[in-house]
Amino acid sequence: MISRLERILSSLSDDELQLEVAPGRNRVYYILGHLTAFQDRLLHQLGLGERLYPELDDLFVTNRDRSFQDKFTGAELRGMFAEITSTITSGIQAMSPADFLKRHESVSEQDFAKEPLRNRFAVLNGTTAHMMLHAGQIRLVVKT
Amino acid sequence: MISRLERILSSLSDDELQLEVAPGRNRVYYILGHLTAFQDRLLHQLGLGERLYPELDDLFVTNRDRSFQDKFTGAELRGMFAEITSTITSGIQAMSPADFLKRHESVSEQDFAKEPLRNRFAVLNGTTAHMMLHAGQIRLVVKT
Repeated sequence: MISRLERILSSLSDDELQLEVAPGRNRVYYILGHLTAFQDRLLHQLGLGERLYPELDDLFVTNRDRSFQDKFTGAELRGMFAEITSTITSGIQAMSPADFLKRHESVSEQDFAKEPLRNRFAVLNGTTAHMMLHAGQIRLVVKT
Repeated sequence: MISRLERILSSLSDDELQLEVAPGRNRVYYILGHLTAFQDRLLHQLGLGERLYPELDDLFVTNRDRSFQDKFTGAELRGMFAEITSTITSGIQAMSPADFLKRHESVSEQDFAKEPLRNRFAVLNGTTAHMMLHAGQIRLVVKT
């Protein structure tokens, strides 16, 4: 799914990242930052280490698009996305099936005892679905 | 994921299904038909029975939007989608973990012997990702 999104993004220039996916809707730039923030959360949630770019949350999750001055270039966002997702991909390859059933880092031990399906597999699945939802929006600006 | 899409769709009237997700792009109506066709394929691929509406492929997979006269009303498409997905949902609940690792119906036994990851779980996952990709597009026409 990451490759699929990267293929869509690679057909857009850095200038084209400034396009809105539909009139008045988010720019591709903002969506890329938003997805990078969620992948960065996932990295931590899967137990693969500390977040690399937690400052993305303020910019791309809490705030809406165009409510702030762009702090990163499109190329910088692409670089962060690639760095985070390659860490996740190699981390996942080293995980055993049993690891996927462990608690993810955003659930407390108490809550996990009550809801054991809130495991690493579930958070991987949910984050991937969220990524695809936005990938479909980005694809609208790609010329076919 | 199905509930998530149905929540998005339920906020649109049948008339609003005629909206394009972005200027010159597919109508929500077409995307709904397209997703219904893929869920109908999934039903069969998961070994849950014969397809219910195979004629959807011609209309919503082979052909592009607006290249043909609409044959079904939006309400009819919603009904088919609900019928197919509720069959899939109850079918999945009755499947064992081992069932998910079985060959899906669109892969030959020979190909499956070579590529055992082309199992029912993979086709469920891929179809769900595809659904979310289009759900994100439909969400663009929902007033927030």
